[in-house]
Amino acid sequence: MDRPLMIFSGQSNVPLAQEIADNLGVPLGKSSTERFANDCLFVRYEQSLREGDVFIIQSLTPPVQDHLVELLMMIDAAKSSSAARVTAVIPYYAYARSDKKDAPRISITARLVADLIQTAGADRVLTMTLHSAQVHGFFKIPVDHLSAELVIANYFATRVDQLENAVIVAPDAGDLKRASALARRLALPLAFIDKQRLSDTEVTSRGLVGDVKEKTALIIDDEVSTAGTLVQAVDVLKQNGAEAVYAAFTHGVYVGPAIERIERSPIVEVAATNTCLYKGQPSPKLQTLSVGPLFAEAIWRTHRGESVSSLFT
Amino acid sequence: MDRPLMIFSGQSNVPLAQEIADNLGVPLGKSSTERFANDCLFVRYEQSLREGDVFIIQSLTPPVQDHLVELLMMIDAAKSSSAARVTAVIPYYAYARSDKKDAPRISITARLVADLIQTAGADRVLTMTLHSAQVHGFFKIPVDHLSAELVIANYFATRVDQLENAVIVAPDAGDLKRASALARRLALPLAFIDKQRLSDTEVTSRGLVGDVKEKTALIIDDEVSTAGTLVQAVDVLKQNGAEAVYAAFTHGVYVGPAIERIERSPIVEVAATNTCLYKGQPSPKLQTLSVGPLFAEAIWRTHRGESVSSLFT
Amino acid sequence: MDRPLMIFSGQSNVPLAQEIADNLGVPLGKSSTERFANDCLFVRYEQSLREGDVFIIQSLTPPVQDHLVELLMMIDAAKSSSAARVTAVIPYYAYARSDKKDAPRISITARLVADLIQTAGADRVLTMTLHSAQVHGFFKIPVDHLSAELVIANYFATRVDQLENAVIVAPDAGDLKRASALARRLALPLAFIDKQRLSDTEVTSRGLVGDVKEKTALIIDDEVSTAGTLVQAVDVLKQNGAEAVYAAFTHGVYVGPAIERIERSPIVEVAATNTCLYKGQPSPKLQTLSVGPLFAEAIWRTHRGESVSSLFT
Amino acid sequence: MDRPLMIFSGQSNVPLAQEIADNLGVPLGKSSTERFANDCLFVRYEQSLREGDVFIIQSLTPPVQDHLVELLMMIDAAKSSSAARVTAVIPYYAYARSDKKDAPRISITARLVADLIQTAGADRVLTMTLHSAQVHGFFKIPVDHLSAELVIANYFATRVDQLENAVIVAPDAGDLKRASALARRLALPLAFIDKQRLSDTEVTSRGLVGDVKEKTALIIDDEVSTAGTLVQAVDVLKQNGAEAVYAAFTHGVYVGPAIERIERSPIVEVAATNTCLYKGQPSPKLQTLSVGPLFAEAIWRTHRGESVSSLFT
Amino acid sequence: MDRPLMIFSGQSNVPLAQEIADNLGVPLGKSSTERFANDCLFVRYEQSLREGDVFIIQSLTPPVQDHLVELLMMIDAAKSSSAARVTAVIPYYAYARSDKKDAPRISITARLVADLIQTAGADRVLTMTLHSAQVHGFFKIPVDHLSAELVIANYFATRVDQLENAVIVAPDAGDLKRASALARRLALPLAFIDKQRLSDTEVTSRGLVGDVKEKTALIIDDEVSTAGTLVQAVDVLKQNGAEAVYAAFTHGVYVGPAIERIERSPIVEVAATNTCLYKGQPSPKLQTLSVGPLFAEAIWRTHRGESVSSLFT
Amino acid sequence: MDRPLMIFSGQSNVPLAQEIADNLGVPLGKSSTERFANDCLFVRYEQSLREGDVFIIQSLTPPVQDHLVELLMMIDAAKSSSAARVTAVIPYYAYARSDKKDAPRISITARLVADLIQTAGADRVLTMTLHSAQVHGFFKIPVDHLSAELVIANYFATRVDQLENAVIVAPDAGDLKRASALARRLALPLAFIDKQRLSDTEVTSRGLVGDVKEKTALIIDDEVSTAGTLVQAVDVLKQNGAEAVYAAFTHGVYVGPAIERIERSPIVEVAATNTCLYKGQPSPKLQTLSVGPLFAEAIWRTHRGESVSSLFT
Repeated sequence: MDRPLMIFSGQSNVPLAQEIADNLGVPLGKSSTERFANDCLFVRYEQSLREGDVFIIQSLTPPVQDHLVELLMMIDAAKSSSAARVTAVIPYYAYARSDKKDAPRISITARLVADLIQTAGADRVLTMTLHSAQVHGFFKIPVDHLSAELVIANYFATRVDQLENAVIVAPDAGDLKRASALARRLALPLAFIDKQRLSDTEVTSRGLVGDVKEKTALIIDDEVSTAGTLVQAVDVLKQNGAEAVYAAFTHGVYVGPAIERIERSPIVEVAATNTCLYKGQPSPKLQTLSVGPLFAEAIWRTHRGESVSSLFT
Repeated sequence: MDRPLMIFSGQSNVPLAQEIADNLGVPLGKSSTERFANDCLFVRYEQSLREGDVFIIQSLTPPVQDHLVELLMMIDAAKSSSAARVTAVIPYYAYARSDKKDAPRISITARLVADLIQTAGADRVLTMTLHSAQVHGFFKIPVDHLSAELVIANYFATRVDQLENAVIVAPDAGDLKRASALARRLALPLAFIDKQRLSDTEVTSRGLVGDVKEKTALIIDDEVSTAGTLVQAVDVLKQNGAEAVYAAFTHGVYVGPAIERIERSPIVEVAATNTCLYKGQPSPKLQTLSVGPLFAEAIWRTHRGESVSSLFT
Repeated sequence: MDRPLMIFSGQSNVPLAQEIADNLGVPLGKSSTERFANDCLFVRYEQSLREGDVFIIQSLTPPVQDHLVELLMMIDAAKSSSAARVTAVIPYYAYARSDKKDAPRISITARLVADLIQTAGADRVLTMTLHSAQVHGFFKIPVDHLSAELVIANYFATRVDQLENAVIVAPDAGDLKRASALARRLALPLAFIDKQRLSDTEVTSRGLVGDVKEKTALIIDDEVSTAGTLVQAVDVLKQNGAEAVYAAFTHGVYVGPAIERIERSPIVEVAATNTCLYKGQPSPKLQTLSVGPLFAEAIWRTHRGESVSSLFT
Repeated sequence: MDRPLMIFSGQSNVPLAQEIADNLGVPLGKSSTERFANDCLFVRYEQSLREGDVFIIQSLTPPVQDHLVELLMMIDAAKSSSAARVTAVIPYYAYARSDKKDAPRISITARLVADLIQTAGADRVLTMTLHSAQVHGFFKIPVDHLSAELVIANYFATRVDQLENAVIVAPDAGDLKRASALARRLALPLAFIDKQRLSDTEVTSRGLVGDVKEKTALIIDDEVSTAGTLVQAVDVLKQNGAEAVYAAFTHGVYVGPAIERIERSPIVEVAATNTCLYKGQPSPKLQTLSVGPLFAEAIWRTHRGESVSSLFT
Repeated sequence: MDRPLMIFSGQSNVPLAQEIADNLGVPLGKSSTERFANDCLFVRYEQSLREGDVFIIQSLTPPVQDHLVELLMMIDAAKSSSAARVTAVIPYYAYARSDKKDAPRISITARLVADLIQTAGADRVLTMTLHSAQVHGFFKIPVDHLSAELVIANYFATRVDQLENAVIVAPDAGDLKRASALARRLALPLAFIDKQRLSDTEVTSRGLVGDVKEKTALIIDDEVSTAGTLVQAVDVLKQNGAEAVYAAFTHGVYVGPAIERIERSPIVEVAATNTCLYKGQPSPKLQTLSVGPLFAEAIWRTHRGESVSSLFT
Repeated sequence: MDRPLMIFSGQSNVPLAQEIADNLGVPLGKSSTERFANDCLFVRYEQSLREGDVFIIQSLTPPVQDHLVELLMMIDAAKSSSAARVTAVIPYYAYARSDKKDAPRISITARLVADLIQTAGADRVLTMTLHSAQVHGFFKIPVDHLSAELVIANYFATRVDQLENAVIVAPDAGDLKRASALARRLALPLAFIDKQRLSDTEVTSRGLVGDVKEKTALIIDDEVSTAGTLVQAVDVLKQNGAEAVYAAFTHGVYVGPAIERIERSPIVEVAATNTCLYKGQPSPKLQTLSVGPLFAEAIWRTHRGESVSSLFT
């Protein structure tokens, strides 16, 4: 696109936005978000966006609703300020887990949010590791769906000494597909934990399917929040004879007791990318993997009209 | 409408919803709103809505964004659960003040929110005292726009002894139209304060236009939040010789230093309706006027296909 | 709905439509579909649909494209003939497998077809066992998504003597969620085959995860077409010591070598519901399970405004 | 935009369109509008618009409906003739006064007309001094809303000898905001007339609020049509001791008895911009202020992708 | 429909609306249309439309643009006033002749107007004898397209003594289909005039195709406006030996020299229905055929959910 | 357009697509269409389309439904793969004959298909000789509607010796307009056959209108399929004394007994363009006229932003 490339950031993850802008060699655009006395937000661009190729970077981390509405307002303001194209860059699309009617009379909010983003005026979406790949289809506008698989594969390869003695573990039957892809990439066997979800934060385990005995277990999942499922999985793996347990996630939301649980667990290390900004205390067990260069490259290719799919296949 | 009438409530103002349901003689519908560990909301109706004439009551009070997204999810879930008609009842439409481009590169968020509500699937809107009457036109779907004018007129008439010696005061030139209507209803003269807004919470006063000397000044406005404008207006009125000052607002948002300011101000009393739920300490200077019966009547007429406009003219 | 209930059928599965109509006690509506010399279709209703509550029954079985376009034309003709409401009843939504971008530059056709159905004018959709539950969210209009799980559970329960010695097997990691639900309903353990898809009809097996030795293996999946995956799974199960193997599918598409493969395989029996009309030769190994009463009940509740979700939970 | 700039004109104000084209240094595009025997209009572009950046200039002056439909047809024809972008330039948006429901069962026609313009296919709108700023939000597409404030401030500054002894007067409470902005720009005090509108052309005055004694009164409003409100305001000001009265309007519609009333009134002079083409007899009291250069500059910046907001702030 | 039937009329043909209301036994609804000083229209319903089944009757006769915009405003006001259903009854859809691109860079205005009517909010359209049957397809909403063929056939049958010696004549090749249908109904031969249209009102004749010698020629067409084509056709028929010439039209627009031309022509009589209100002087050669009962019947059936197509086949 | 020009082809007429690409001097784009075991189609582009100006060539020849769905999927995949613009090039738009409601309760499928193409995401359409010109208006997006008239006129001019002794014949009253245009171009007289359609393939002739005695009759129509109407027309012409009969069609669909009928008929020769790929045996009576250069030129002009209308007027 022969329009100037412009990168703006919402309030959710300014360091990632800055890293992306730095990788692209453009300044991070000037905009401000204020809050009126009645709690309404007020966004304003402090430079002209006319005919710009605008990318707005906003992860839907807590407070999710504030970040979502801020994103919608930024898209709306960009469009009505005559941006040529507006791409919503959503490294962490929190509502992706509300992707089906698994109970009566609920909202498939991942679809609703997709509709809201399009109503606000977004022309494209760039995101990473949606909870299920089908969420892509909730958008009518073009979506580039990046994967952190390669980043995570590299992480495991460099951190684990005897990778040939490892096994990839999915902590839930629903995540098996993603684990299976990674297993194939690293040429490792696969196992999963047949758990039953009792509520949002409690699950009960029906046992391990597959073999982890005397192996290094590499847990892979899209998202960690309270780490409840994670530490339970570690216990199951340990009980089944796993020697060492590592885990890697695309989205490290880390809320509530997450860090404390991880530190008390026999897990060796937990890694997550920086799609979510980590604001807690540093912990020796936590690793952060950067996806900034990957997002920068995808934005650059989108801007230049080059293939993005070749980035991750 | 020959479909069953159903009243549901979001989390923002359950007492008002209950009052409305009580006035209508129907039980308040069962629904729940939870929060996932990653801060995403989860709404669920606990009874069938099939072919129902559903009214969802939600004021956009702080936390505004949570209440807005909850409302959107409730509308979406109601539509996809086969409600025959969904009316969004929004006693306080907080974003109504973002109704124009008074600065470059901002969002006319009152229009954006109207679009979001329609995208979520609302068939109608019922609201009260929009900051400007034009916000009505931001919706394509039918809107019933109630007024608290009669409730407020009655309040002044009963609280103020010598109403014939009173003057209606608009605290801002932009609000003159609303004040003018009330003045005509009460057959009172009109004055206004020519202020200049410096920021969201600070204004500077250029002086009073009109005469308040030895009169009871009745300030009228759509919304009070920090009460900064209010106490400044009281000071101007006092300096210009007003004997006593009262104020009435449709929407009592009361945030931050509002109550403390009111209590320290020479104002006699401040009244507001219950469109916003007051969660602060009781104060002898605060009066709450109920609009529950008015909303109940409007819902009843909407449900029955009777004229709502005759309610407030 | 106080409008007359009308059931019409496309050409794909008239016996199922007739069974549904019989269950509902209404005559199957009169309509005709012809083909012009240039291969264009021509649909016509031979009775008035004015203000009718119209249900059009059409499975997207081969020839899929003819059945899809016929459905779109029937919806369009019904709407422009002033039907009050049109529900597309699609027992088998063939394109549900095209639900994500698992290769670059392809169409998420399950979303496209959902858009086409809505463009044609459908007000609702009633379908069964979508390949992935997320396809529900590809529709903006209300969807009732029926499950054949209970029908299949009953089938296994009545056909297998020592059910307590059985194990539920998912022939693919992606289907584990569905198998897991059935396993829980029947209180049985779970296993799956970790295969790698090489093409649409060829897969290579990486081995069994879980234990089937000396057990009756009950394969469960959403759809059988060429039966290639099925017979391969049977071989893997037999090699791993399974005593007997049964399989049940919601959608029995049975194309090409399917019947021959099943007859030559050591599998005991294969069951499928009648969402797809079976036009082949009778085979002693094939069982057909009827979902006609289930669809009839769901249509009746939709028509009457009663809860459909209570049907399958 | 790297597409050729093209300026076309409807029939309502060809001289302004020519002035704009001249200022831009491009020829006025060739198009024709005819009327069929049955009164239907027929518009036709006589040159290719393919990939052009097309601006269509049309004021909604009387006959308003003909000019509106002609505009819609020109937009439609431009889009279907493959213009790259179509901007509706509407110097006078007549229906802006129908911006709210101030009576039951009426049309908010300013919103309806906005919808019609978007349905016809306009990509942008460029307009001036909408009756209320909120009308901006009736459009979903980008709007540039120009102001004649600077032109009018310059006019007053050059025509009135002792500007420091002047007062800005709003002839109606509803217009106070606009008057207030001008007062601040010229550092003048403010007054307004508290009138009551009885019908479209009759108002009754409740008196002056503010002080005009021995001052030069400068009336400011968005639009003058029959001049009834104007001459009444002049009388009120004179009765309250104003020495001299001037008036300036953005839109000089001048219909019916307007000129006669102005000539008989003690007002010194009335100025209006050329958003509306004046077709009456010349009058020594009438001044026309040109906004052609302002529109030309705004079009140029829009075409070049430069900030328009910096034009008027 | 179990909602009250309501009939309203625009300004174009109140007598037809009254006749329809009388035939239906309901009072004509109260509404008013005014014109502001600036020529903007203002429509208002003077009774509640809530949940009504509203039919708005408006022919697009001259002044076409005023009648079109009035219709759009009436639809918009009815929808926003909560009418349950709004049917635009357009006996004469003037723009139907602008139905194709027969010149480059023009508007297919019949499609544009259909879009405008739908944007305003109409749920259905009821119209008569569109210039081409394809215009029906310009609407996405249901259309009932009435024909005056039977009314016209009856007229010819009763006015012409020896019908068996008559011939149906199409005055233009493009109208042959309609003439052909009437010829078949009356079992008469067919002829047509091969003319070439030079402009909207001038045509040149290339001669008669078919035989009219010593026969009574019955000209049939959808619309008569200036009667230029008509009198030319009469001349051609007379030159080719026709004994007597009659003509019948659905839409009698009669503008400019129409009546004078007809009176001077050797034609015996010209008939047209009352879709267009005739406001000229009475002429002995003019006959008016009423379609009021036909429209009333179609409205009744639409309201009752009965087949309308059976009315005219 | 400054984006790369890309030409892709569906499966219906690859030779024409290749001819167009060759004329444009660009390679035919790489894409594949496969068929899953369950008959669902699967399309995939094998090269990047990012920011491309994409033209997809697909005639709706039999199997019409497969070709239509393939086209929709190719459009959808192109849009979601970030093509800058997608033009659906549909040389033969088969459903154009379903352009009106000539029977109750049918679908105006030409409009429905236009809606589907737009829903899939097409930005433009390029087509040839629609059955009726009004079908153009079924699309909201820009359409370029090419004509084969000049190609056909040239064919007749070169094949017929004494063109001055020829007569143009329309085989049906509905096609007279097109025949009339060709007659005028070649300065020939006109005749038509007044037939009555009994069904899709059977018609009965009511006789010839016009004179063909001792003349060469040149039949012209938009489409030939079974050739039933054609050979019947030839018989009528022969019975009325025509010396020789030729025929030319834009779309040569040739199905069923078409070729056999033509070979047995006394017609001299039948010509059709290559909008439809002829897959039958060669026949000495058949001529194929190429429209490849015309489509290539139209695509080139569209791509370059030059006037297409000048191509065919």
